[in-house]
Amino acid sequence: MPPEPDQIDALLARVRFTDDGLVPAIAQQHDSGEVLMMAWMTGDTLRETLTTGRAVYFSRSRGERWAKGDTSGHTQQVREVRLDCDADTVLLLVDQVGGACHTGDRTCFDADVTVVSA
Amino acid sequence: MPPEPDQIDALLARVRFTDDGLVPAIAQQHDSGEVLMMAWMTGDTLRETLTTGRAVYFSRSRGERWAKGDTSGHTQQVREVRLDCDADTVLLLVDQVGGACHTGDRTCFDADVTVVSA
Repeated sequence: MPPEPDQIDALLARVRFTDDGLVPAIAQQHDSGEVLMMAWMTGDTLRETLTTGRAVYFSRSRGERWAKGDTSGHTQQVREVRLDCDADTVLLLVDQVGGACHTGDRTCFDADVTVVSA
Repeated sequence: MPPEPDQIDALLARVRFTDDGLVPAIAQQHDSGEVLMMAWMTGDTLRETLTTGRAVYFSRSRGERWAKGDTSGHTQQVREVRLDCDADTVLLLVDQVGGACHTGDRTCFDADVTVVSA
């Protein structure tokens, strides 16, 4: 069951968007804990995400709404939306179909790893 | 062993900072997978993080360097620094001492949870 409309309104009212009307959203695989990607949302795409249960972002480079998986099929079903302590970052717990990254990798953080300490 | 200086230079050269010279950094507990917090880094604080093995951020509100745990003792020892596919987000795999959140919670995403689907 998606959240009630008044619950969605209340959540959106808590979010502190940037001056550009954006909020960073981290997508994490709900069971494995993998951090899959980080992208941006507007109020509208966060509302759509909460209403439909599917992650929808906003592309800053293209300046448009971007429903994850529309071209790749690699959708994200959203289980939980969490807001951080100062309400300026969103954490999505999702079930990722296929790879999250446009390169085909499972996560966007797989390819460039620097070990700092053991 | 921290990365070699030339390895640090090469990593810093790959990062795509914002016009303000910042990059978002996600801190994740290396073993449990918990997403602890999201904060921002400058080139200088990312370099210090890589050199010292301790997470150092930049406070946008205070406009100053901020070494995690300096006041709370809740430091983050950094195991890995990962860069995402378009090099504009950093993922830190850390060992968090105590709670990551200034509220005392283990993570900054513990307190505001909205269930979207089962």
